[in-house]
Amino acid sequence: MKTIHLIGIGPGNPDQVTLEAVKTMNTVDVFFMLEKAGRGKDELLAVRREILERHVSHPHRVVTAPSPRRNREDPHYAGGVVAWRDERIDVIGRLIDTELEDGQTGAFLVWGDPSLYDGMIESLVLLKARDTLDFEFTVIPGITSVQALTARHRIGLNRIAETITITTGRLLEDVAAESVTNAVVMLDSRAAYHRFAETGHDVYWGAYLGTPDERLVAGPVAEVAPVIDAEIEAGRARHGWIMDTYIVRKPRTEP
Amino acid sequence: MKTIHLIGIGPGNPDQVTLEAVKTMNTVDVFFMLEKAGRGKDELLAVRREILERHVSHPHRVVTAPSPRRNREDPHYAGGVVAWRDERIDVIGRLIDTELEDGQTGAFLVWGDPSLYDGMIESLVLLKARDTLDFEFTVIPGITSVQALTARHRIGLNRIAETITITTGRLLEDVAAESVTNAVVMLDSRAAYHRFAETGHDVYWGAYLGTPDERLVAGPVAEVAPVIDAEIEAGRARHGWIMDTYIVRKPRTEP
Repeated sequence: MKTIHLIGIGPGNPDQVTLEAVKTMNTVDVFFMLEKAGRGKDELLAVRREILERHVSHPHRVVTAPSPRRNREDPHYAGGVVAWRDERIDVIGRLIDTELEDGQTGAFLVWGDPSLYDGMIESLVLLKARDTLDFEFTVIPGITSVQALTARHRIGLNRIAETITITTGRLLEDVAAESVTNAVVMLDSRAAYHRFAETGHDVYWGAYLGTPDERLVAGPVAEVAPVIDAEIEAGRARHGWIMDTYIVRKPRTEP
Repeated sequence: MKTIHLIGIGPGNPDQVTLEAVKTMNTVDVFFMLEKAGRGKDELLAVRREILERHVSHPHRVVTAPSPRRNREDPHYAGGVVAWRDERIDVIGRLIDTELEDGQTGAFLVWGDPSLYDGMIESLVLLKARDTLDFEFTVIPGITSVQALTARHRIGLNRIAETITITTGRLLEDVAAESVTNAVVMLDSRAAYHRFAETGHDVYWGAYLGTPDERLVAGPVAEVAPVIDAEIEAGRARHGWIMDTYIVRKPRTEP
């Protein structure tokens, strides 16, 4: 039997990992790192290596493998994601099969929390369902970029008697801007916040959260959307990639 | 100038705190603990004291004060919450004023993450707005019970191309059960999951998450709702209180 841990390592600040994550990392024989092409590959790998250097004394190996690329031209979004996921499951299965001996423990370090917009849990569930490999796995929660965002802006995710929706830039396009009271937007490469300029929403935006390059912007969308545009452009120019998150929220008169 | 830290301490497992939280706790002169009457007062205080004993070597004092009771009979829910919040701000202001010297650092330990269904951030923002006390404050994120729930059930918060709503048992009552695809329900004292027995939803439920008393139930609501009922009854009988969270989710055919 082999054991795999999916370890949430927070949004990028090496101190924003839990003691549980550190203890778990110190039981791991092999850390697997899937390298995504583009998107700050070296920087992202460097942060994970720094976390290992700083927190892990247990002897271990690091095995990297290229992550399959998603075909972003696929007109059927969910279908494209599924094809990409299946390929990724193949890669993960090969890693566990060939790089881990029976009785050994492997781990994948996951940005933020493995439960939030990350496919690794599902990948391992589906890999187990294939019944070709004998392994168990556990999930170790981590701080999400959403929590880093609210902490740095010092706001609640919700106000009194209010729900919160967590969504993506893409899904937000199907919703009328006026109908949004309070939404966390992740994975937005379309600057969907502009849709809330006319509706009087506020925005709380952050990028590279928890890192020395952290950027924060807050205010009425109508005023600060150009500031966010400029931040995104500058961030992309400087790092070659950007990881940003924001909350759009209808102001309300205090109850 | 005085400094206050709102420190998220996770759902109850002393290892589910971040290194950032531990480092911050080790700069604190006075820990303030607001004691809620009822609801496992002693147990909850004991967990916080254990976290301090285990992780804090910096000399500090612990000051406890009774938290104002919310009038649950108030027919106007939001109004009742606001009155209670204002009273709590008075208590917090007195603690910072009288128990902390200029230049000292105080902290409140917050269950889970200070941004999720906790009023402390808002209380400190409003206290600062009163302009009667000179203090700064920071927010340190923590693992939420929602993240402990998804980690233990090994599920994602969302599936592909799906939004997530975080809501309360109370707010859920205003929504048609059929319209709910994927919702995290917190603070439900009404067993609102029963509403999803006829609609074919699945439920992933957990209580006392991250503690040795953790309980987990998952399955179709129609099948497991009586199991959850029994767990809640047994938990209340044993502990005198229960802290539970769940996700209701429409099954869907894999894309």
